[in-house]
Amino acid sequence: MPISHITLRRGHPDAYLDALSNSLHEALVDTFEVPENDRFQVFHELDLKALCFDRNYLAGPRSDNWVLIEITAGRPRSTTIKRSFYRCLAERLADSPGIAPADVMVVIRHNQAEDWSFGRGLTSMLEMENET
Amino acid sequence: MPISHITLRRGHPDAYLDALSNSLHEALVDTFEVPENDRFQVFHELDLKALCFDRNYLAGPRSDNWVLIEITAGRPRSTTIKRSFYRCLAERLADSPGIAPADVMVVIRHNQAEDWSFGRGLTSMLEMENET
Amino acid sequence: MPISHITLRRGHPDAYLDALSNSLHEALVDTFEVPENDRFQVFHELDLKALCFDRNYLAGPRSDNWVLIEITAGRPRSTTIKRSFYRCLAERLADSPGIAPADVMVVIRHNQAEDWSFGRGLTSMLEMENET
Repeated sequence: MPISHITLRRGHPDAYLDALSNSLHEALVDTFEVPENDRFQVFHELDLKALCFDRNYLAGPRSDNWVLIEITAGRPRSTTIKRSFYRCLAERLADSPGIAPADVMVVIRHNQAEDWSFGRGLTSMLEMENET
Repeated sequence: MPISHITLRRGHPDAYLDALSNSLHEALVDTFEVPENDRFQVFHELDLKALCFDRNYLAGPRSDNWVLIEITAGRPRSTTIKRSFYRCLAERLADSPGIAPADVMVVIRHNQAEDWSFGRGLTSMLEMENET
Repeated sequence: MPISHITLRRGHPDAYLDALSNSLHEALVDTFEVPENDRFQVFHELDLKALCFDRNYLAGPRSDNWVLIEITAGRPRSTTIKRSFYRCLAERLADSPGIAPADVMVVIRHNQAEDWSFGRGLTSMLEMENET
């Protein structure tokens, strides 16, 4: 159910983007109650000059490898879960593809189950509830 | 009032994008209580490798023509209205430009009337209420 | 804390984008309770045909210089603050880089303090509260 938009500078090799994608998804599965097959990500590679970010506000120093990960999720998660997720994500991205923890910024948004259609014109999360 | 962001792979002809735009807007007008002239859409055409999506989670099979439609609306809509909208949108996009219903993913977000300025520094939705 | 996504047509000179960035940030600092160093913006320069907007709905006439500014903020702001912000932003953008007020569209979204990690795996806004 979550959809993630990942924004970063242009110019990383494909292997870097693949590793970022995998580490993000693994962190979501391990700590954010996301099913293994529920993987939806959009990568926005932009010129560095299109990214305007303070190098030190609330964390830092940020480098040109700054990445912004914006996640929309359809059901509430506790503060405890979010804390675990941020920690886990920073660790995994440090490990692969090797992003400095200070360069990982995350913003979460929430909406409701009825706000998702995964396809075929269905109100997917409500149909699921009806099936159980 | 809604603003829609449409994300899909690069490489479709202009006529395909125009038809997608029209079908989306018609579905919003017909089922989502959107005025005819209230049309605001942004198209994000990305390389296919920038789109990471499971081919079968909750619907499928998804193809390379997968399209993600993210809509922000400034006032609540009932679950009934959302159900009708998803169905109508999938039907219209199947008709024109011919997108398989399994390839149509929709995410809705809500904010408030005061969260919109359509221009001229006005808090547009509140000024409207004041006029009536 | 706010993150801003700015969408506009491709083809403006760098000085135009810099001025837009500065005017937006100054309006946020002066009227939206944003700290001076809390500056995070992403610019999406798209082909004009990727931007579909009514030329006159609720404001206008809109020109090819239409700009969509979408802001996510982690704490509530009053309607009074939002009104001041829209007015101030339109004035500053008219002044520099010289955008017609009818071309400035703003959409605000809110989430919670716990929805932000500015880096290092921290739940940044909550750690701040703990420190005070």
